[in-house]
Amino acid sequence: MSKKALLIIDMQRGDFPPAKFRYQADRLIQNIDRIAARFRSQGLPVVYIQHDGSAENVFIPGSEDWKILAGLSPKPEDIVVSKTANNAFYKSSLHDVLQKQAIEEVFISGSATDFCVNATVQAALALDYQITVIADAHTTGNRPNMDATMVIDHYNWVWQNLTPTQGSIVVKGMSELGLSGTSLPSPEDS
Amino acid sequence: MSKKALLIIDMQRGDFPPAKFRYQADRLIQNIDRIAARFRSQGLPVVYIQHDGSAENVFIPGSEDWKILAGLSPKPEDIVVSKTANNAFYKSSLHDVLQKQAIEEVFISGSATDFCVNATVQAALALDYQITVIADAHTTGNRPNMDATMVIDHYNWVWQNLTPTQGSIVVKGMSELGLSGTSLPSPEDS
Repeated sequence: MSKKALLIIDMQRGDFPPAKFRYQADRLIQNIDRIAARFRSQGLPVVYIQHDGSAENVFIPGSEDWKILAGLSPKPEDIVVSKTANNAFYKSSLHDVLQKQAIEEVFISGSATDFCVNATVQAALALDYQITVIADAHTTGNRPNMDATMVIDHYNWVWQNLTPTQGSIVVKGMSELGLSGTSLPSPEDS
Repeated sequence: MSKKALLIIDMQRGDFPPAKFRYQADRLIQNIDRIAARFRSQGLPVVYIQHDGSAENVFIPGSEDWKILAGLSPKPEDIVVSKTANNAFYKSSLHDVLQKQAIEEVFISGSATDFCVNATVQAALALDYQITVIADAHTTGNRPNMDATMVIDHYNWVWQNLTPTQGSIVVKGMSELGLSGTSLPSPEDS
């Protein structure tokens, strides 16, 4: 059984209502909170990715926009990794952090579907991780030629049709992971 | 002035009509052929990426599907790089080939927009290349919840809004590159 970690990408105040529209933001926060609780309860790492946009003069460390959403504040045992690109592995400590804990399997959640989530999924696959993207635990905004739901559905479809590397990728909903409803079986059973 | 190379991704017979629908395949082939001619005329490398799908039992080397489209056959001076994942840099010789020629800037074209083109764009950005995606020199098929034109427009929009790394990314049409019409100025002027 490979060791798992949860990645929570860019759930920062400046990227969510009221600062910015994100499709079903409240539901997303609840879903990620539930997943994170499960990982913590099993002693598995919860890794927050926090964008440092100093180079673009946005999401400056310490600013209100940069902070993690109040409803998803990291717990003392959680890990916070700073990143500067869409891809959370780019010149960050993320790969080292995961390697040091012998993590082979990453569960990916967060925002935005078509930017940092997609870039991080692509990078994780190139690094041979086993990936589960949680279909209803990432979100985005409306785009010039389509609304957010179409974007989310499209990427969920693309990801599960990517060619495997030495790693692999699947896209599963909360319910498939035993993470909805009142009876919560272990994700180890999924 | 950084040295440029053209990447032509997965323009293989098994991925194009009549084997598979691709939006405006004929126009795409003409566009890529025109760009490749310009690169060759300036002594700049034209690099074909050719998918080897042995692991998935498709696009087997030597098979008809695997061959480059007849209208885009590599010239003797061109380079052909084999890949096995969506991302053309994954365990391939591509990065070495480019590094050996001191290429810092890649022009990206080919198929499919939302699979190998996107995965290769993401990887090139993480490798700090300067990237120009040619907006009307990549294509895809219709997808479950949107047609090919929506996919192409969406990715062109996303790519030009990605956060720069030490590399950068722009999306430009053939005409912006001086590559349409009968008078063809040098892309060095663009």
